[in-house]
Amino acid sequence: MTDSMAYAAAVLRRCDELAAFSEEEGRLTRRFATPALRQAGDAVRQWMESAGLAVRRDAIGNVIGRLGESGRRTLLIGSHLDTVRDAGRYDGMLGVLIAIACLERLRDDGRSLPYAVEVLAFADEEGLRYGTSYLGSGVIAGRFDPADLDRRDSDGVTLADAVRAFGGDPHGLADAGHQPADLIGYYEVHIEQGPVLEASGVPLGIVTAIAGQTGGRVVFTGEAGHAGTVPMATRRDALSAAAEFVAAVEAVGRGEDGVVATVGELEVQNGARNVIPGRVVLSLDVRHAHDAIRRSVLTRLHERVGAIAEARGVAFEWQVGPGTPSVDCSPELTELVAEAVESCGHRVVRLTSGAGHDAAMLATVTPIAMLFVRCAGGVSHNPAESVTVDDVAAAIDATTRFLEMVG
Amino acid sequence: MTDSMAYAAAVLRRCDELAAFSEEEGRLTRRFATPALRQAGDAVRQWMESAGLAVRRDAIGNVIGRLGESGRRTLLIGSHLDTVRDAGRYDGMLGVLIAIACLERLRDDGRSLPYAVEVLAFADEEGLRYGTSYLGSGVIAGRFDPADLDRRDSDGVTLADAVRAFGGDPHGLADAGHQPADLIGYYEVHIEQGPVLEASGVPLGIVTAIAGQTGGRVVFTGEAGHAGTVPMATRRDALSAAAEFVAAVEAVGRGEDGVVATVGELEVQNGARNVIPGRVVLSLDVRHAHDAIRRSVLTRLHERVGAIAEARGVAFEWQVGPGTPSVDCSPELTELVAEAVESCGHRVVRLTSGAGHDAAMLATVTPIAMLFVRCAGGVSHNPAESVTVDDVAAAIDATTRFLEMVG
Repeated sequence: MTDSMAYAAAVLRRCDELAAFSEEEGRLTRRFATPALRQAGDAVRQWMESAGLAVRRDAIGNVIGRLGESGRRTLLIGSHLDTVRDAGRYDGMLGVLIAIACLERLRDDGRSLPYAVEVLAFADEEGLRYGTSYLGSGVIAGRFDPADLDRRDSDGVTLADAVRAFGGDPHGLADAGHQPADLIGYYEVHIEQGPVLEASGVPLGIVTAIAGQTGGRVVFTGEAGHAGTVPMATRRDALSAAAEFVAAVEAVGRGEDGVVATVGELEVQNGARNVIPGRVVLSLDVRHAHDAIRRSVLTRLHERVGAIAEARGVAFEWQVGPGTPSVDCSPELTELVAEAVESCGHRVVRLTSGAGHDAAMLATVTPIAMLFVRCAGGVSHNPAESVTVDDVAAAIDATTRFLEMVG
Repeated sequence: MTDSMAYAAAVLRRCDELAAFSEEEGRLTRRFATPALRQAGDAVRQWMESAGLAVRRDAIGNVIGRLGESGRRTLLIGSHLDTVRDAGRYDGMLGVLIAIACLERLRDDGRSLPYAVEVLAFADEEGLRYGTSYLGSGVIAGRFDPADLDRRDSDGVTLADAVRAFGGDPHGLADAGHQPADLIGYYEVHIEQGPVLEASGVPLGIVTAIAGQTGGRVVFTGEAGHAGTVPMATRRDALSAAAEFVAAVEAVGRGEDGVVATVGELEVQNGARNVIPGRVVLSLDVRHAHDAIRRSVLTRLHERVGAIAEARGVAFEWQVGPGTPSVDCSPELTELVAEAVESCGHRVVRLTSGAGHDAAMLATVTPIAMLFVRCAGGVSHNPAESVTVDDVAAAIDATTRFLEMVG
């Protein structure tokens, strides 16, 4: 077999090339249906074609490259080409480029697969422009909601107009579901976006589930007052209540294995140095691979918020919805990924994905599997995002093995 | 003696009249050197003149009404006519109008004082337009800093130009100190801006000191990260650190009698629901009548911030200056105020002013005394600011008694 290092080096060069396609000078921001995304899609199309794939764009602008005649059983492999604001260059793109690299490598080695492969480069996963979730893979999964066509970006451009300007067909989106009759499954390679693999000293991780997540808002309303004149004993300080809740979120999160619980936003309304905070709004984000555990954590936090508010004589609002359920990866496909990783000489580390991925959407139509690649410091959504050529080579090796085993 | 109720009712009517002089439709905002402040000053001038005072404006635009020939020993009585944004109608104005009402009442009763009185209506105390402290009373105290002339308001207008447009003399400010040779002292009536009198069930309070105060900023810098992927155990969450500090501020404040300690502002930089906070900036405000106690509270909080940061592996910045020292009221004058209040049939309640007042500035040139008037709910800096006609009558009675005793 050819050495994967040359393919890994090419993948990193292509990540660098894609990073140049940005809406902003000096940093990488590539939202849905922008000229920058068009350029990135065109580059990916070219690499797909030179790998021997038959390429097309669908109605939302996903780039789809197929290897193998129609009618064959088909494995989907994908990830996304859009980014967050001031992004790194691997989140999304790495998975697409590794898929292409593996097919190039098999061709170079003169080997063919007994099934068809489609590489999917999704046009929107991050949802930065329209606040959507999994817009690209949602179309593939046949789950596009036409109500989303009226969404407007920060310039007032509707999603319908953006799709049209991007060469797509807004009114065909709901029917653009693309599910070849005989699907083997969906496989995605992605950077971990967390520090577990680095801490474990392994390049690759086998994803067992994509955590369910609940997001929401909690509001505390006490009584504003003059910071110099209202004695401590008579205050109803909304920020002190909120601080107690932030501590409770951390404690509950720490107390339950695998839970992550975060207050990422906190606003003191009409805050001023000399004013006792009267109203504080904060965000809440709770995730776990098991929905029952996530729900139990939320129940405890809801109770805590009530107890804190009562003890302090402040009011509270608990604006927390049901959230999205967890998605299990296919045990069969995931076992093959683990075997592939092990056969490449790496210790098998299994972990839950705390971040959402296109795989969660594809799971509505086919079994899924995911492979994580170690990233420096667990950093993502940041220009400091970084992977090593050795780890990318390991991912190419394991994915190639997986492709050979899955058929 | 005439019944104080009629004078109290007139004071409240005049507060209502002044409240109509605003920069903003539908709410009261009256910054330094604005047409609204000019209108308020003109109305006060008229009321002073009809009370028999000789009125002038000084270089900064303070309105000064004198009763009694020059050369006589002089008692100063004052407060301010400017407001915060979306203000109440009593903070400042009440003290000026009660002073005028007492002199009217003495005249109506055919009584004269064996000393001169000057009523001072300061043009700027809140500092809303230029971020200054005690601009009006500072000029009277001879403490104007010419460097302030270059300050600009939000429209870019310098203080020098604003003073000129207001009919004042920017270059005469530093020498406009006005301290009649033989000062008896300075007396100020002001709403309490806190809930102590209401809780004590008395209309009036005797101020013993104006608390010293320290303001500053504390910054926690941890590490931003993905809220879904970074395990609780490896996080360096700046908001969790800040929440622990907010709790410490409250606990330290509650643990020391008379201390007020407040975090009024808190900002999560680049906050997002799905991002672990990397940097949090918060404000700190600590006040007490004894500077040594305030300093000791700050030392403890400084230690706590270091301990919190070390335990969590986050960095901190402690941007807290020395603050302004406390100002004691004159024991002699204050005893007279207490006797006056008691002789009017009210229980004597002594308290520290947690808010700053023009009296703190006048204390640099003459002994001071202050009388607080109960306000509903302790609310100030808010359109809901409210006093009763009975309480204003009580303040007029006590002040009249004080004027008769102080000579």
